[in-house]
Amino acid sequence: MFFKVKTYEEVLEILKGFEPVDMEKIFIGDALGRVLSKEITADDDLPNFPRSTVDGYAVRAKDTFGASENLPALFELTGEVIMGRVPTETVEPGRAVKIPTGGMVPDGADAVVMLEYCHDLDEKTIEVNRTVSPLENVIRPGDDLKRGALILEKGAVLRPQDIGILAGLGIQYISSYRRPRVAIVSTGDEVIPIDQKPEPGQVRDINSYTLSAFCSQAGAIPVNLGLCHDSFSDLRKIAAAALETSDTLWISGGSSVGTRDMTMSVLESFDAMELLVHGVAISPGKPTIIARSGNKAVFGLPGHVASAMVVAEVFLNPFLSRLSGEARAFEDKHFYRQAELERNVESAVGRDEYIRVKLDKRDGRFFAEPVFGKSGLMFTLVEADGLVKIDRNTEGLYKGQIVDVMLFSPFKAKA
Amino acid sequence: MFFKVKTYEEVLEILKGFEPVDMEKIFIGDALGRVLSKEITADDDLPNFPRSTVDGYAVRAKDTFGASENLPALFELTGEVIMGRVPTETVEPGRAVKIPTGGMVPDGADAVVMLEYCHDLDEKTIEVNRTVSPLENVIRPGDDLKRGALILEKGAVLRPQDIGILAGLGIQYISSYRRPRVAIVSTGDEVIPIDQKPEPGQVRDINSYTLSAFCSQAGAIPVNLGLCHDSFSDLRKIAAAALETSDTLWISGGSSVGTRDMTMSVLESFDAMELLVHGVAISPGKPTIIARSGNKAVFGLPGHVASAMVVAEVFLNPFLSRLSGEARAFEDKHFYRQAELERNVESAVGRDEYIRVKLDKRDGRFFAEPVFGKSGLMFTLVEADGLVKIDRNTEGLYKGQIVDVMLFSPFKAKA
Repeated sequence: MFFKVKTYEEVLEILKGFEPVDMEKIFIGDALGRVLSKEITADDDLPNFPRSTVDGYAVRAKDTFGASENLPALFELTGEVIMGRVPTETVEPGRAVKIPTGGMVPDGADAVVMLEYCHDLDEKTIEVNRTVSPLENVIRPGDDLKRGALILEKGAVLRPQDIGILAGLGIQYISSYRRPRVAIVSTGDEVIPIDQKPEPGQVRDINSYTLSAFCSQAGAIPVNLGLCHDSFSDLRKIAAAALETSDTLWISGGSSVGTRDMTMSVLESFDAMELLVHGVAISPGKPTIIARSGNKAVFGLPGHVASAMVVAEVFLNPFLSRLSGEARAFEDKHFYRQAELERNVESAVGRDEYIRVKLDKRDGRFFAEPVFGKSGLMFTLVEADGLVKIDRNTEGLYKGQIVDVMLFSPFKAKA
Repeated sequence: MFFKVKTYEEVLEILKGFEPVDMEKIFIGDALGRVLSKEITADDDLPNFPRSTVDGYAVRAKDTFGASENLPALFELTGEVIMGRVPTETVEPGRAVKIPTGGMVPDGADAVVMLEYCHDLDEKTIEVNRTVSPLENVIRPGDDLKRGALILEKGAVLRPQDIGILAGLGIQYISSYRRPRVAIVSTGDEVIPIDQKPEPGQVRDINSYTLSAFCSQAGAIPVNLGLCHDSFSDLRKIAAAALETSDTLWISGGSSVGTRDMTMSVLESFDAMELLVHGVAISPGKPTIIARSGNKAVFGLPGHVASAMVVAEVFLNPFLSRLSGEARAFEDKHFYRQAELERNVESAVGRDEYIRVKLDKRDGRFFAEPVFGKSGLMFTLVEADGLVKIDRNTEGLYKGQIVDVMLFSPFKAKA
């Protein structure tokens, strides 16, 4: 079987072929970072009564016209608005009613004069030394949101303020895409659980932990299936179970040709499995495999964790956003920082190369120092702050060039 | 009591006076986004054996010197390295041992020739058509990390790759600062629970939900205490309980002078309470109160949620980072995007003003459209992508000016 290595753009097109997972109803108190599966419209005006935005006196604006410090207007004080209550009186010409911030503006009044522009003459009389215009310091019903207005679109990722407006409208439950479940398995006869001491030739299972944390960071639910030795029947059993219970399966490890071939054989042994990608034109990360069974994607990820992380940042990020139903899943959501490259970096034409860089700030400018190291080194990734992409049509970057550093996703997640 | 309004810098200095919360031991699988309370050093070399980074043949490099496609070097094939096992034989001059990626390089060999540069002549003989240098395609013990090396500093926020390297070293549990517990209470007689229908004059509790989500996003644990009507004794009881059980208390609401005064009276009624800030020179957000009791900060936040969110982005972000023990708590961790301002914006000298803007991308350029609206409007915050700061020494910004848009924190959190 011959497969042409796919470019970045081709892989993204392929990932667009997967559909978001199904929906569930969730409480807004649990909805931070979750994705709306239905748009939200206002079912009421917000606010639904005229509100004062200041502490002051509710008046008829035209009664203040011409008022100034030298020539204040006099008002008869007839009462006070109680917070949270409907005012009992109407504001007549020449009269004023005291009102707190957030209080309901009484009938008759169309503006509120701030306290600081008023002066109590006696218990029943105030003077106002400034003109207010109609609607000054007043929010009218529907000023914030009108009934029927579109508030949040399908596919929006909910931020704190979005949850706030849902609360304000009394929308307690929303329809959201489920958080995708990602089954993760590490393969390789040399890999041992992290609580064991490696004999020479053995290494601990770095990949499951790194990829699980990556999933959590992206808002997905990692299902860490642990280790699988290089055994066709074991891997097939695990893969079959994972495809039943999870939304996607990530098989990591298998940098050696033997392990990769075994992963391929396992995938080919499923009737419904279609191989989509066998090798991508990025470096590191070339030996990536993508297959699909129904709407479930199987990724064969490079065994070197530094390579797997590049594939994760570049492809698994938008893929998980897509499964989560995000409207802008395929827009690059990384943050970039411009920096001056500290060294020349050569690159092969024909593949996008991602180099790891460490950022340094000196004299208010950012510098990007490439963190070189053989593939398979883990600490280079810990030292790095992000990646610089060298386009496949470029032969390299030169020292002093200004580059855009793709910062590693900085999301924090609840533990 | 007279308090001078504090500047941004003065408030940050005050917040630096609070100490991180205490530590706990956590499993690395739960440690994403958590902060190390002790540095981590390597207690072993990583890897602890010489490893091949490719599929190929382990040889003595000098036996390949001079080899080329035209003049290949011949090697006697004497065996194969099994993944995860210690090789049983030593590589003698003129001999080669097959080795998979990640396999342990046998004694005697100092380099690995990639498969693609080799040719099987028969079962016992291969030819090599390229020269390899000593250590080519070999990771030596300690190449990734040497025993005793500093891996992660105290105060580091753990990323997926950081968790990966801990797994690689067999470090299952780490010492981390606890996630800070933030008690949140909404005050105001007009505020009702979100499951009730507001009468005219009433509004639903937007602030608790917005601030709780903000806390989760910042990695803290919100303890939503719900509503408190404007009652001195009720608020005092809630505040006393919150100070016992949480690391900080945020009292929101109270935009009216009456409610603010009550919050102040409650704070003053605690013997150990010291008032630190009464008003800040930022807009919106001016009526912010900060007090301390021991190491516990009490924030009185503006009742308008749009104002409270500005205070949260500007002050509560670094404050929570500080409580969490982050080494870089007081570095601004927002991401910024440069954009062209779409309108003139006036601003008062003497206070930093934060305007909400919506970003728009046209012809590859970003434009920032100010989202104006009376304070107290919530939807302006939903429409906005971030804030633009107008420095207190500036009278405003003009249309066409390039501004740095502070993007709202984009973190995703597990629900």
